[in-house]
This record gives sequence, structure tokens and C-alpha cells, in this order.
Amino acid sequence: MPIAPPCPPEWLAGLDALAERAIGLSEPNPRVACRLITRDGRWFEGHTQHAGGPHAEVMALRSAQAAGVSVQGTTAIVTLEPCSHHGRTPPCCDALINAGVGHVIVALQDPNPQVAGRGIARLRDAGIRVDVLDPTHPLALASRALNVGFFSRMERQRPWVRMKLAASLDGATALPNGVSQWITGEAARRDGHAWRHRATAVLTGIGTVRSDDPRLDVRLVPASRQPVRVIVDSRLETPPQARVLQPPGPVWIYTAADAARSAAARAALQAQGAQVIDCPGPPKAAGGSPKVDLAAMMRDLAQREVNELHVEAGHQLNGSLLREGLVDEVLLYLAPRLLGPGAGLAQIGPFEALAQGIALSFIDLTPVGDDVRIRAHVCPRP
Amino acid sequence: MPIAPPCPPEWLAGLDALAERAIGLSEPNPRVACRLITRDGRWFEGHTQHAGGPHAEVMALRSAQAAGVSVQGTTAIVTLEPCSHHGRTPPCCDALINAGVGHVIVALQDPNPQVAGRGIARLRDAGIRVDVLDPTHPLALASRALNVGFFSRMERQRPWVRMKLAASLDGATALPNGVSQWITGEAARRDGHAWRHRATAVLTGIGTVRSDDPRLDVRLVPASRQPVRVIVDSRLETPPQARVLQPPGPVWIYTAADAARSAAARAALQAQGAQVIDCPGPPKAAGGSPKVDLAAMMRDLAQREVNELHVEAGHQLNGSLLREGLVDEVLLYLAPRLLGPGAGLAQIGPFEALAQGIALSFIDLTPVGDDVRIRAHVCPRP
Ligand SMILES: [Zn+2]
Ligand SMILES: [Zn+2]
Repeated sequence: MPIAPPCPPEWLAGLDALAERAIGLSEPNPRVACRLITRDGRWFEGHTQHAGGPHAEVMALRSAQAAGVSVQGTTAIVTLEPCSHHGRTPPCCDALINAGVGHVIVALQDPNPQVAGRGIARLRDAGIRVDVLDPTHPLALASRALNVGFFSRMERQRPWVRMKLAASLDGATALPNGVSQWITGEAARRDGHAWRHRATAVLTGIGTVRSDDPRLDVRLVPASRQPVRVIVDSRLETPPQARVLQPPGPVWIYTAADAARSAAARAALQAQGAQVIDCPGPPKAAGGSPKVDLAAMMRDLAQREVNELHVEAGHQLNGSLLREGLVDEVLLYLAPRLLGPGAGLAQIGPFEALAQGIALSFIDLTPVGDDVRIRAHVCPRP
Repeated sequence: MPIAPPCPPEWLAGLDALAERAIGLSEPNPRVACRLITRDGRWFEGHTQHAGGPHAEVMALRSAQAAGVSVQGTTAIVTLEPCSHHGRTPPCCDALINAGVGHVIVALQDPNPQVAGRGIARLRDAGIRVDVLDPTHPLALASRALNVGFFSRMERQRPWVRMKLAASLDGATALPNGVSQWITGEAARRDGHAWRHRATAVLTGIGTVRSDDPRLDVRLVPASRQPVRVIVDSRLETPPQARVLQPPGPVWIYTAADAARSAAARAALQAQGAQVIDCPGPPKAAGGSPKVDLAAMMRDLAQREVNELHVEAGHQLNGSLLREGLVDEVLLYLAPRLLGPGAGLAQIGPFEALAQGIALSFIDLTPVGDDVRIRAHVCPRP
């Protein structure tokens, strides 16, 4: 039986786009929008600001206050449950209660174990009517998709890992001679930067640092902040002059290198502002040098409040991440060109049966300039 | 300056879909629809029937006649210029003139050199007002796209060559051990049969005949006729028991094999109903056996009234066709799976620069079941 909507549908319209304005701003907090609708039909809105700054609810309340409008008895619509705990800011629940809001519509319950329904309970205890949208409501789905990384970190203690790939239509990421620059066009590169900007951190491997010397910052779209750069560098071989160390913001280098033997390299990288994080996997068979424990790295990144992790790596690290089941989403740009033999997307296989491949589920298919963008979820393993 | 439309837009609506009903029926004639709109607003319609059967105009006229309605002074809308020559049927121009039609709207001029404006001239000579839509009008574009093979044959003396491919998202058409069955799902296979059905002929190579023994007929969608099967078989090695010889309809085997030395094989294949066509390329360097001249084969197929040629071949023949610039369109189904190393789409390259690759232009991007379908035009070479 369909649940009667708690308000006219137009009251919910555009809140998804408003919440998106918090992208690149609210990290590591979720992207949330709030709309107040007064009894005489006036609207006041806001979205989450930078961490430590006001949340969406407070922004909307301030907007009404600035207009000299009373919010007594208004309806507040929030795309995520109002917070109930003292974090970097006082709880939004209290702000709504103190302002005299009469009705709160919540698109989605907060997965944060410090909130998780307590915000709703607190509002109800204060005598406020609270409606929660059905989880399949478009606004609930949009809010969850926009905060996929925050939900992943809260529910799985892992970032949402999105692997960006660019290839020819026949799957070549580079020619046999290594040429790979500009396989995809300007619009796809710009779109890729917008996805970088969405992420808390961008991850690459030492192979890519050495071969391409990328900056991995956000340049082709306006950036309110730069993502953290993360490098998987088992033997601590990142050159101190690598360009990835230059943009503003933290650089975290995960390594399995022996602390004493790599002391000089550590000191040089730390002098460049990078943080070296020891994360060795179990010792390998004799002769093999230890590798970074990628699953442990993901847990550590979640501890460091990474919500979405954007991977731009070579086919070796891509393959390791896929094989270990650590990738959640594939973001693939395909160029209108057939290139024949060349480097593949990821070092996996060879497989003996189709079912051994990495199973995906397509979620989006969009032309971007002359290229096409395909997004797919990686199916969880049985 | 936009040209004033010659009729209310609703008079043109749905004629593209009506013309599509001639798919699989009208070969080698174009797919055409006709709508008569009487002075009191009654509609009568028809589309091209089987070759030798009535054309769209005659079908529409008969439909009005069967209803006992006079077509004196009606408007006739046709998706392609009415024919003016005695082909398998008398000219439709005469039928329209004799019926007393007052106004003819033509979506697109017929590229057939035997028509090419003469139909329009003949109608005008008879005092009938004729309007031709702008070539960029959606109905003109749809009519041209639906008859892309007929236009190609008339204008270039070549079929329109559409290469069907199915691969994993990373471009593998088969695993290293050869496993390739069911990479894509049921819906994609059904869609592939609909494209086979659109084609006058389906082409494959001896490699695929030997390894997969396909039927290459239309089974997964309703078929009003089976396409001709065409095999590129330079050394005439098609086994007489091959399944591709079994479905009804012609089989043409293009070969470069010496007539005398392959006499027994010829006789065996002819006994199965296949036609063996000699089409050798220039002699190779000492030691190499002659190959079918693919460009000459395309000209011959056009002579045989093949409009659209649907290619389902292995990566070797695919590569030869692409390298020789004989492919017009790529129809690629991508499965939601990453498979790592395996057989590629087409044997091209290795290239040393991206610009050496086969340049494409994406024209359509559609989810088909769990898979995605990508259509692209091959860019003509400079
Ligand atoms: Zn809050
Ligand atoms: Zn005709």
C-alpha cells in the first residue's frame, strides 16, 4: 500500500540539487539540504557548509532569521536525519526545537551510530511531528546516492571505492609502446575531475607516479577544496619531487617498507609534507618483498574519515583492488576508437570460466563529449 | 530561414514506424510507408510488401478503394520518392496520378539512378503539387537511416556494412581457453537477431564456421525471411555438413581457391545448395595462398542487391574488414563483467600512435537487458 506523502511533492523538489552544492565543501560530513516552509508559504533553504561550519538546518534557520521571518510552526524538510550529538557543532535537533519548528520531514535516517534514529526520537520527544520518507522515495534514494561514501564509512567502516578508467572502445588504456595521453577527450577529462572533486581522497599507485607523474588534483572544474592524495607505495619509492606532492592538502603514502631501512626516504617525503603510513601485509614467501595490505589500508582510510575514494591507478593496482573485492564502482570512459593490442583496464585473470570474471551491474550510461561514460557497481561476492 | 511545413505535423507522425514494418519483407527494395489523407480527413496507409508485391503507395490506394472511399484530391505522404520506372511492378507515380491524388509530400528523394527526381518531376508534370521535406527533417532522417543499406548500394555500389560484436566491458570476446558462449545475455542475443533480420545478408568467416559452427539465421525474433548467409572462405574449407548451410535461403561462399584443385569441395558444397563465388585477390608473395578480395566481394554483394550486410565474424576477419576500410558501423554489446586477457574485438594494430586507430563516432547508447549496446559509425578515412 503506498504511503500517503507527508507534504505536497513540490516541497521536496530541487532538494537533491541543493544538497549537491555541499560536494567538496562538507567533507567528511554528509551532503545535506534543508528547506523551511513557513505557515504562510515562504521558503528558506540551506545546505551543509565546511566541516565545523553550520549544518543545513542552521543555514536555513539563519536565512529565515535574516529575513526577519518567524519560523514558529514551520515545516522543515531535511535530506538526512538532523544530528543529535555534539560534534564539531551543537546538535541541529536542538536548533530546530528551540526555533519552534512544528513539523519535520526526514528523507533518510542518518547511518552514523551516534545519530541513527536518536535525532528523530529527540524531535518527537519535544512534541514535533516527524515523518520519514519511504527509503524508495526518489529524494531518499538521491540522498543516499549523494552520500554513498558517508554511508559506506558508517555502515561498513570502508570508503566507497570508485575506480576511474579510460580506454578505447576495445578496452586499451595505452598502446603497446606506452602512449596513453588523450585517449579520451576534453569533456571526459573535465567530467573525471568533477568525480575527483566529489571524493575525499584520490588514490594511485607508485607505478603511475613513476610513469605518468600525475598531480591528481582538481583543475578542470571549480574546486572548493583539493582531495587528499593517497599513494600505494610498498617499497617507499615515491620521488620527493613527484608532482603529486605539490598541490595543497595532505598526501598519505601507504607503505610496507621497513622503517629503519627506508628512514632516508621517509625523511625526504615528510620534508615535502607527505605522511608515511605503515601498512604492511603478511610476510610473503622468501624472496618477495612485503606489499601494502590493501584491505587494512581501506579500514585505515575510513578511520581517517575518507567517504568516497577515487582510484586512478594503473592496471596492476586496479587488478589487485578488484581481486581483493575492494572496488565498489567502476567509472569508465570509452573513446570512439579501436586500438587493438595494448594495456588492459586491470590485471585480472586469466580465467577459465566466464563466471570467474568480476561481475558488474550497469547503473548509468551517458555520452560525454565524443566519448561515452559507463558507470557500474561491482556485484558483492557471494 | 525555416521552411514552412507542407502539412500539419500530425500527418507525418508514425510514418517512420510504419515504414519499419517493411523490414525483412521488402528486400532488396527500400522500406517505405505511404499515408493518404482524404479531403474529409480520413487516413489510409500502407508499406512496401515483398519484392514484386505492391509498393507502399499502391497498398494505401487499395486500402482506400477497399473502404469505398474516393481518393480524388487527397494528399499522399510518402517516406521515399514514388518510383517512376517499370521495375518488378508498374511505377507508383502512375498509380498516384491515375487515382487523382492532388498533393504529394515526399520525405526523401530516391537515390536510385532510375528514379532520382524523375518520380517527383513526373508527378509535377501531371499537375500535382509536390513538396519535398528538408533533408534534416526528422522523417527524412528516419527514412534515410531505415534505408541506409539501400542508399549505400545506390550511392556507393557497396552494402552498408554493420559489424556486430559482443564482449566483456574490458573488451574480451572470449577467454584465453576459447570460452565465449553467453558473454552477453538473452536480451542482447535477441536484439542481435533483430539486427540480423534487418540485413539482406549475414557474413562470417571460415574460422568462425569451423570453431563455432553457427547457423546465423534469425530465430530469437519473428522472421518474415531469412537473410542470405555469406562465408569468406579463401581456401574453400567449409564442411558440407556445416550448420550455416542448413537454414532456408541462399548461401554464398566467396573463395580464392583454384577451381580445378577445389573441384571436389565445390561439388560437395553446391550439392548442399551453396553457391561458390570466385573472388581471388592479387597473388601473394611466394608461399602465401591467395585470399578473397574483400573490396571486390563488397562490390559483388551490392550487385547481388545486398543493402545491409551484417557481419558476425572472428577477430581475424573483423580486423581485415576494418583495416581495408570496409566497415561502416559497429554494433557492440558490452556485458557487465571484467574478464582480463582474452580474444579481442578485431585483429588490428599494434599501433604506435593513437591517431592510427580506427576512428569511430558514437550514434547510440542503450541498455539491453543487463548489457549495454553501443552503436558507432566508422569515420571515413581522410
Ligand atoms: Zn547537524
Ligand atoms: Zn513504387
